[in-house]
Amino acid sequence: MGQTADLLSLNNELFKTYLFYSVVLMVKLILMAPLTGRQRYKNMAFANPEDADTNNVKVKTHDDVERVRRAHLNDLENIPAFIITSFAYILTNPEIEFATLLFKAFTAARFVHTFVYALYVVPQPARALSFFVGLLITLYMAFVSIYHFM
Amino acid sequence: MGQTADLLSLNNELFKTYLFYSVVLMVKLILMAPLTGRQRYKNMAFANPEDADTNNVKVKTHDDVERVRRAHLNDLENIPAFIITSFAYILTNPEIEFATLLFKAFTAARFVHTFVYALYVVPQPARALSFFVGLLITLYMAFVSIYHFM
Amino acid sequence: MGQTADLLSLNNELFKTYLFYSVVLMVKLILMAPLTGRQRYKNMAFANPEDADTNNVKVKTHDDVERVRRAHLNDLENIPAFIITSFAYILTNPEIEFATLLFKAFTAARFVHTFVYALYVVPQPARALSFFVGLLITLYMAFVSIYHFM
Repeated sequence: MGQTADLLSLNNELFKTYLFYSVVLMVKLILMAPLTGRQRYKNMAFANPEDADTNNVKVKTHDDVERVRRAHLNDLENIPAFIITSFAYILTNPEIEFATLLFKAFTAARFVHTFVYALYVVPQPARALSFFVGLLITLYMAFVSIYHFM
Repeated sequence: MGQTADLLSLNNELFKTYLFYSVVLMVKLILMAPLTGRQRYKNMAFANPEDADTNNVKVKTHDDVERVRRAHLNDLENIPAFIITSFAYILTNPEIEFATLLFKAFTAARFVHTFVYALYVVPQPARALSFFVGLLITLYMAFVSIYHFM
Repeated sequence: MGQTADLLSLNNELFKTYLFYSVVLMVKLILMAPLTGRQRYKNMAFANPEDADTNNVKVKTHDDVERVRRAHLNDLENIPAFIITSFAYILTNPEIEFATLLFKAFTAARFVHTFVYALYVVPQPARALSFFVGLLITLYMAFVSIYHFM
């Protein structure tokens, strides 16, 4: 047994770091829902008749709501993929400082992505850059893992 | 090594409970697809030309289809976040009865959410309440985990 | 402790196979984003005003973009569910050759699904078949796991 249990142990600083950033990213992800809700109320733009009725408006869409929803979907498309991939990556026994740097950079990139997408819109390439930093980190860890486990 | 392997062991009742509810929630999640399909056929509302052609109708959207799709997306936004967060939470070595209660309450809240959203629409706050019960449980476990692993 | 740590060990060929296919599927999933981007540029169909402005076009939707996005969402609805369910399934100590076959078949089915949905559209039932192969594999593993852990 040995090695695997050592890597998936709380005695392994990298595994603790992984758990920490995974949970931080999950909090970030699920808080997109209240952020969408805030835009729905601000713009009185609801998707469900029962919600619109309560507020005496008709169902409608609004650009600011859809923007937050796209940022939310982008998180869904990228964050779980990072968490699953980095779980495998930890088991390749990577150099701890470097792996920690990747986890931190991915997390920062996703916060920046949401900020420039949904909170304070700045011109490209801010959003594209933060997206690609996250994507490339996940792809890098994926290729290391695939090569290691094939 | 010790503690971590003990927590992630089938000898730990909480880990077994976690696996059980995670899989139940995944079954619930993927069965939203046939539920959407049922609404598509019932209302002859297809998203793809090749599907509409087969049924001799034009591509269109329908409120009842979109409602199930929103419930499905809401599951996607919340259930994987719960499963990842509770994996970390187990490793904080929580009191077993209390953690089991959280897992059961989250699972029940998600079934209620889908029921009042997509199967039998009831006025708010039924949907909002079931959503927030799930969200708050995940956030609670997340903050315990973040505090523990930082 | 024993058994669980043995199953979640790199000495267990099935766990290595699981890590390999999980990461392959994550790469497949996140590469749907550049595929969407390619369709957006090809058809000059952007969702964000800041992106449309840069290309001197107006925000619009396009069928080929929406088709790739539906394929991407379908991946999101099915691949993480497979990865979580098969993690539990491994812990039921299944017959290794059979479990490996399920992992390979699921992975193949998802690649076929995307190919016939978003790259080279073929008439039904190609997409429905590949979808249901994946769904039934996940459901099978889920029911084995639920029965084992309840």
